[in-house]
Amino acid sequence: MKTFDVGRLAAFTDGVFAIAITLLVLDLDLPDVSGKAIGELIQADLPKFYSWLISFLALGTLWLHHHYIVAHLRCTDITILLLNLALLLFISVTPWTTSLIGAYGDQSIAVVLFSGCLGLAWLSIALIGLHARKHGLLLADAPKPEPGLMATLVTLRGTLIAVLSIGFAHVDTTWAVLVWVLLFVMHPFVYRN
Amino acid sequence: MKTFDVGRLAAFTDGVFAIAITLLVLDLDLPDVSGKAIGELIQADLPKFYSWLISFLALGTLWLHHHYIVAHLRCTDITILLLNLALLLFISVTPWTTSLIGAYGDQSIAVVLFSGCLGLAWLSIALIGLHARKHGLLLADAPKPEPGLMATLVTLRGTLIAVLSIGFAHVDTTWAVLVWVLLFVMHPFVYRN
Amino acid sequence: MKTFDVGRLAAFTDGVFAIAITLLVLDLDLPDVSGKAIGELIQADLPKFYSWLISFLALGTLWLHHHYIVAHLRCTDITILLLNLALLLFISVTPWTTSLIGAYGDQSIAVVLFSGCLGLAWLSIALIGLHARKHGLLLADAPKPEPGLMATLVTLRGTLIAVLSIGFAHVDTTWAVLVWVLLFVMHPFVYRN
Amino acid sequence: MKTFDVGRLAAFTDGVFAIAITLLVLDLDLPDVSGKAIGELIQADLPKFYSWLISFLALGTLWLHHHYIVAHLRCTDITILLLNLALLLFISVTPWTTSLIGAYGDQSIAVVLFSGCLGLAWLSIALIGLHARKHGLLLADAPKPEPGLMATLVTLRGTLIAVLSIGFAHVDTTWAVLVWVLLFVMHPFVYRN
Repeated sequence: MKTFDVGRLAAFTDGVFAIAITLLVLDLDLPDVSGKAIGELIQADLPKFYSWLISFLALGTLWLHHHYIVAHLRCTDITILLLNLALLLFISVTPWTTSLIGAYGDQSIAVVLFSGCLGLAWLSIALIGLHARKHGLLLADAPKPEPGLMATLVTLRGTLIAVLSIGFAHVDTTWAVLVWVLLFVMHPFVYRN
Repeated sequence: MKTFDVGRLAAFTDGVFAIAITLLVLDLDLPDVSGKAIGELIQADLPKFYSWLISFLALGTLWLHHHYIVAHLRCTDITILLLNLALLLFISVTPWTTSLIGAYGDQSIAVVLFSGCLGLAWLSIALIGLHARKHGLLLADAPKPEPGLMATLVTLRGTLIAVLSIGFAHVDTTWAVLVWVLLFVMHPFVYRN
Repeated sequence: MKTFDVGRLAAFTDGVFAIAITLLVLDLDLPDVSGKAIGELIQADLPKFYSWLISFLALGTLWLHHHYIVAHLRCTDITILLLNLALLLFISVTPWTTSLIGAYGDQSIAVVLFSGCLGLAWLSIALIGLHARKHGLLLADAPKPEPGLMATLVTLRGTLIAVLSIGFAHVDTTWAVLVWVLLFVMHPFVYRN
Repeated sequence: MKTFDVGRLAAFTDGVFAIAITLLVLDLDLPDVSGKAIGELIQADLPKFYSWLISFLALGTLWLHHHYIVAHLRCTDITILLLNLALLLFISVTPWTTSLIGAYGDQSIAVVLFSGCLGLAWLSIALIGLHARKHGLLLADAPKPEPGLMATLVTLRGTLIAVLSIGFAHVDTTWAVLVWVLLFVMHPFVYRN
């Protein structure tokens, strides 16, 4: 089958990322109480602000990772397009799971849905990378990681954070969500050389 | 008349696809009942989740097909731009027809509108391909299908599914919607070689 | 000053077009009355459907025209960027003016706002073309129209339709809106050779 | 580490800009009072129109500046990607801060949030430029400004306007918002040669 070009895949994915990351803010909508002080309204809505910020960081990190993997693709095939479609499914649902942890952050199922979707998004990208390497769809100058535990851990870091978060969800929902900040903090170590 | 470049056509179309596919999630909005368990709320809203997922698959499949056809275009003309505008009309209306089958899925007219718009979108792409072949707007390396029943069926597979779905709508609305999953399952067969 | 490249101007504009044209559908939102037949609900909301369709056609036509003008630009300068920003202002406000004519279509001021914004959008594109010709920012193979009344009429056809529509608004608001269909019908004549 | 290409950074950023600038209009939503005259409804909502227009100008100016800086980048690195992510955070929150000054424009905290986010967005772009110059990521033909107070003032003009606006916020909230128009008026002077 004809191999597809990478540019349009990236453009379509960037569109979905851009919309999802901007729609997050629709959830911050303040109640239209003219007589009230904003400070109080925001304070009463603090959980929504936390969930918005963490979701923004999580999607931003995911975009960086997608960017990094796709930059090494020579071309795509139908498997990569389908895996990328799965990725888009999990990205496009994030504004909804974010509003869940904003409104029902004390229920473990909200965190499970939020972290589950993000974890599956990371898994989709990992599978794209794996498939591309196996079928020779990478550029000649793409880095060849030593196969091993460390490389796998780096590639699946988002999925591992999701597992950690889901595990925590039944103990403490607040910490279970905050775990995603770890992923953002890891950046300098992942891209150090 | 000057023939237009394909890149901007694809970019504009990708934008509409990306927004439509992300707007679908706005319909999943949960009622803001703080005291309720999410599990119950979601269960009460299950039809919305089904319609969201099927609509995502239907739009994703449509994007793959558009991607495939446009990748073989050498340039565009005013006819292709107008046909593509018709396609965008049917895509941009999908978040609305999706919310229709989510909220009124038991009324046949909801399914007729949902499947009708998707079927006309597939028809628009088929006409783009037909017009491009007739007026020599395809790239030299574009595949030349044997003209015949099989090729026509493959090109119009989305329109046929729509006709099937509309036919079913008056018998059983649930199955009439589920018929769209067939189109997604067909992929490996359509793109097999 | 450094002249800017045309690609990013087109990409940003396409993004705003794509979002505006897709947001139009948000206005079609049906009342969530589970017991009612969709047919009746839609019939009661028919003005919204008319205004949605006409607005889609008007924005689609505008995009075609922008596409045509920008395809002949060699580069941009700060004047073109500012004129294009004015264009984006009038495009981005269209979902709002569309909902105005959908809900208050019998008040002339709704039509004046709707047609006024579209007319100014067409004027912005005409000024972009004029400025580009005057300052040598067009490609060498850009068509050189005979300066004259006919060329001016073609370039300003959208603005003229807007003036016509605003004039009609005080007589009959329905016809004042329908006038925009004329612009869409003109296409084969404008792009005939 | 592999340096990233500039094209996808610009595409993703343009997407967020396009969505944010178009979402602004969602706030203009008129109350659905069929019997009322639009003129009166708009007059009662005038603050929302002012805040929409000023926010559009502020985001438009910011886009022009981003466009100008990014046009001189040869490639990107992880620092630029992270700074750009910070920029996107402050852009994507603008529809929310705009609705704040539209609804609670008489409270200084609304202006502080609105101007603060815009100021930090300008700061992010300034840091992108600074980092790019320091690490040789600029194109060979990028202009080399004489280091000095004037160049710093030009680069940080948005941040300075934000500081001015926040200072004014505790005196007069209306003027504190209007200060952003200054930034737009400065254009011919900044890009004069």
